[in-house]
Amino acid sequence: MNRQSSLEFSTPGRGTSDITDAVARVVAESGVQTGLVHVFVQHTSCSLTITENADPDVRRDLDTILGRLAPDGDPAYRHDLEGPDDMAAHARSVLTDTGVTIPIGRGRLLLGTWQGIFLWEHRTDAQVRHVIVTVLGD
Amino acid sequence: MNRQSSLEFSTPGRGTSDITDAVARVVAESGVQTGLVHVFVQHTSCSLTITENADPDVRRDLDTILGRLAPDGDPAYRHDLEGPDDMAAHARSVLTDTGVTIPIGRGRLLLGTWQGIFLWEHRTDAQVRHVIVTVLGD
Amino acid sequence: MNRQSSLEFSTPGRGTSDITDAVARVVAESGVQTGLVHVFVQHTSCSLTITENADPDVRRDLDTILGRLAPDGDPAYRHDLEGPDDMAAHARSVLTDTGVTIPIGRGRLLLGTWQGIFLWEHRTDAQVRHVIVTVLGD
Repeated sequence: MNRQSSLEFSTPGRGTSDITDAVARVVAESGVQTGLVHVFVQHTSCSLTITENADPDVRRDLDTILGRLAPDGDPAYRHDLEGPDDMAAHARSVLTDTGVTIPIGRGRLLLGTWQGIFLWEHRTDAQVRHVIVTVLGD
Repeated sequence: MNRQSSLEFSTPGRGTSDITDAVARVVAESGVQTGLVHVFVQHTSCSLTITENADPDVRRDLDTILGRLAPDGDPAYRHDLEGPDDMAAHARSVLTDTGVTIPIGRGRLLLGTWQGIFLWEHRTDAQVRHVIVTVLGD
Repeated sequence: MNRQSSLEFSTPGRGTSDITDAVARVVAESGVQTGLVHVFVQHTSCSLTITENADPDVRRDLDTILGRLAPDGDPAYRHDLEGPDDMAAHARSVLTDTGVTIPIGRGRLLLGTWQGIFLWEHRTDAQVRHVIVTVLGD
């Protein structure tokens, strides 16, 4: 039994948006009791991550850390067609995840208490992002 | 044909534990011949990785590298409720993997000769960690 | 309905090879209309990533960034049996992905316009790499 949905999210620029509820809705509608849900962004300058859902400072600190690992406007970059955040965004996407997979049990997402699914925008400007959610199982 | 198991591991604090055999057991018990096994930690301060299984210095060096990318007690962190390793552990979890997926063929994990599946504790103190293993296939 | 293929790629040493077409062929041959395809490298010193497929400078910049995060020949490494790129390659593998999963819809890979699937060699010398492609779905 499979189900696939295409979701659209507007991001306000760099930072994280909690999409756990949207993914949980697709799982509930699928009727799958035991299986997997896969979440995928069709872009190369944003990403997905599963991280702490309680204290927003965690996501702020994660942006601080990525800002060191792949800084904006680094003079070593050759790819800067769309501005100083262009290559930094591609690199941050690669260092995190284009897709995440979460187990489903008893018809529900088997996330831990403190886990949320976040869409992570790495461009500084607002964007519209497309996400494919696929459910496989019984 | 699906099978899902919940496993529990005690970690002695920061470092890696080889959980390949535990995952292989769930695969063997599932009877699945061709498919995928997904392994997922229900936590945001430890992670999973597939890496070299022969020389323990590899995992030691990986901890050294993560210690530079996301150092303990960085003054830039705002989130430090649980101590200097708190935010560092969340960041190391995000830079590695909350879940890994491995192909199954002829009823066995299709890992390469030098690949092992490791539970990677990022907190300095001992923890109990919950892992969900889900097998999908025929 | 499942299908699994073992692919072999020769890499010319450090850098990326676009394997999107080879993965798409396995998906087409599977006949699966809705589902997931999982791509897995059986090695610990190369990796897979989904990134920008248009401007090769993006992949060059990604190598530059990884070269800072996990430099060759770092004196802190204990594992250097196979040369200065040995531990750096393991670390770059862990910071990127051993496996990637892509949704399938209407029998095709649901990649975004600018997304490609790349095999990323982290060793400096040429290698032969084995990749397992597994398709699950209806």
